[in-house]
Amino acid sequence: MYNFVYNIPTKIYFGGNQISNLGKELKKFGNRVLLCYGGGSIKKIGLYDEVVEEIKKAGLELFELNGIEPNPRVTSVKAGAEICKREKIDVLLAVGGGSVIDCTKAIGAATFYDGDPWDLVIGKAKIEKALPLVSILTLSATGSEMDIFGVISNMDSNDKVGFASKEVLPKVSFLDPKNTFTVSPYQTACGSVDILSHIIETYFNQEESMYMLDTFMEGMMKTVIKYAPIAMKDPKNEEARANLMWTSSWAINGFVSACQTCTWTCHPIEHQLSAYYDITHGLGLGILTPRWMKYILDETNVERFYNFGVNVFGIDKNLESMEVANKSIEMLEKFLFEELGLKKHLSDLGIDETHFEIMAKKACNDGILKGFKPLNQKDIENIYKMCL
Amino acid sequence: MYNFVYNIPTKIYFGGNQISNLGKELKKFGNRVLLCYGGGSIKKIGLYDEVVEEIKKAGLELFELNGIEPNPRVTSVKAGAEICKREKIDVLLAVGGGSVIDCTKAIGAATFYDGDPWDLVIGKAKIEKALPLVSILTLSATGSEMDIFGVISNMDSNDKVGFASKEVLPKVSFLDPKNTFTVSPYQTACGSVDILSHIIETYFNQEESMYMLDTFMEGMMKTVIKYAPIAMKDPKNEEARANLMWTSSWAINGFVSACQTCTWTCHPIEHQLSAYYDITHGLGLGILTPRWMKYILDETNVERFYNFGVNVFGIDKNLESMEVANKSIEMLEKFLFEELGLKKHLSDLGIDETHFEIMAKKACNDGILKGFKPLNQKDIENIYKMCL
Repeated sequence: MYNFVYNIPTKIYFGGNQISNLGKELKKFGNRVLLCYGGGSIKKIGLYDEVVEEIKKAGLELFELNGIEPNPRVTSVKAGAEICKREKIDVLLAVGGGSVIDCTKAIGAATFYDGDPWDLVIGKAKIEKALPLVSILTLSATGSEMDIFGVISNMDSNDKVGFASKEVLPKVSFLDPKNTFTVSPYQTACGSVDILSHIIETYFNQEESMYMLDTFMEGMMKTVIKYAPIAMKDPKNEEARANLMWTSSWAINGFVSACQTCTWTCHPIEHQLSAYYDITHGLGLGILTPRWMKYILDETNVERFYNFGVNVFGIDKNLESMEVANKSIEMLEKFLFEELGLKKHLSDLGIDETHFEIMAKKACNDGILKGFKPLNQKDIENIYKMCL
Repeated sequence: MYNFVYNIPTKIYFGGNQISNLGKELKKFGNRVLLCYGGGSIKKIGLYDEVVEEIKKAGLELFELNGIEPNPRVTSVKAGAEICKREKIDVLLAVGGGSVIDCTKAIGAATFYDGDPWDLVIGKAKIEKALPLVSILTLSATGSEMDIFGVISNMDSNDKVGFASKEVLPKVSFLDPKNTFTVSPYQTACGSVDILSHIIETYFNQEESMYMLDTFMEGMMKTVIKYAPIAMKDPKNEEARANLMWTSSWAINGFVSACQTCTWTCHPIEHQLSAYYDITHGLGLGILTPRWMKYILDETNVERFYNFGVNVFGIDKNLESMEVANKSIEMLEKFLFEELGLKKHLSDLGIDETHFEIMAKKACNDGILKGFKPLNQKDIENIYKMCL
């Protein structure tokens, strides 16, 4: 029950004025740097110029890949890997949110693979090696800055698939809360829901996890619930941005999930939503999570919901377990749909049940989704319908 | 305020049956291993035989240093460093509690220093390099298994001094809760107080630390308070031992102290007690901590005590801050002196005020101890007297 290996060697520079360490850190891995980024928001906030200056100051050679998509595509992975091979890149520098970092992770792995990079994503081929990766985070959400995961989409087949490998764990990440000051209220909300969902997926576990780690998860959930609305209203609130940023990393880096015995549920169900409709991942999770909770809550798992209600939302511990459990879901809905102001229904996004059957089938890989409560294809379809 | 570097690359094998990874991990650093341990309790629990078998199975050459003291002495550091130099040791293996690991850290550093190892402890010389260190923990207390600190005593001068260096951070540590099943109730209590004290020293901070990290510290304090009495009554309770063990590492490894702005107080005050009277460190901390709290509590710092009382001891949040603060100290005393059954007074240990003046002088280095509330020599003497 308490058996695990903890191994998260990523070095983190947290806070302002840390970028002066960038050149030195990149140089440890070589001289040829591929800078990967998205649609150019890093230029607007001046970060691009800062980064380029540091790279030049350190005497490194700079190459670039831009235009990485919000749900990053395997076509970008291919393009990046081609540059790495052609230009003999030594180290990757991802500057952006989770999508950019995820894509850069896949580029690093694809550089050492001669086949179709999609093979590495779907596990048809194993990631044996990857280029060293340094990241500069601009959006608190996926935790990619300190974890071994990535998610890549293939628009040809409407597939959005996660991969995992120790080889792609960032060596160094720069987390400056100020780099998230321009994140819009909506993206702040969606990112925060993603963080919260990572913790919820881990906290709701078939077995009791370690009590100490439960307290950490409860603390992180309280942190997100406290600070997400503040960051939305007051985007330059450093305290709020710092707390959300550091929580994003620790929610998913493997620390609190050390004793976890079951796999995630809402993420695979949501991945089908964003694969089919290209909606923001955090929004999809926000719509799904309370419905999933209502669908699975029963006498066998009510205690976990009770702890969630008492320790995260401060619900009176003297109430009946089931009452606390139901209240906790209400409180979560209030947080998501009132405080964060997220859309509550898939129909609000123009989504109807056309693809629910095939999406549900994909979400459980034609079988059972072995989460906190195992779900079959029909269950997943029902949950999608509850979200309409 | 939120500026720090997080860099804790120690790899942890947690739980049972992990020792089979020992040979492989040691081998990464070379073939010649110096096994360091204490008074032989590791032989009684069979751990010594297991370790030797793994080392032999991996084809490594084994050297030994035993007899490291509970408050490890600089004489042992010298003896160990001489073996390392003479036998060209590649990697150190510390098997024991914090004292053994601390001493082995100092040995690793002293191996690369030609002068008196005490220079490295007191900072007269800088630790430039150290041998790689692997540890197997047998007592949950100091956190040495995952931190950069060590404490060494010099009995010639009644000095007990802490040192810190990234060079001595263990590369790999094995944390098997079962290896602490034979720790006596008294040592379990003292170790738990040490853990609790590390968190308290960090939690009571002049500035607000990061909220997320506060919740972690509160969670760790709750963990110690919940499980220390269980482990005392039921020594083979794996859940309790596992929670105490993992908390010992995270209480002091640098994670929760990232935003800390002031230095520790009770530890330097206690170090004089164990330097002069060779008492168990955790016992000294247990006697000192509530007295220190009473001595420093005032209107300027009452809010931190309020949070401590509400979030750790579950005191009614609607009470007046000062009432909650006073209650929290009472609850702490109840935990220490009733639940853990620790002696409450220095006089119970045969200690009188003979050395208080010089001890207080040493504790503040002839100046001010710049902790949560700065203390001068007279203050420290007063606190010692409150403990009589």
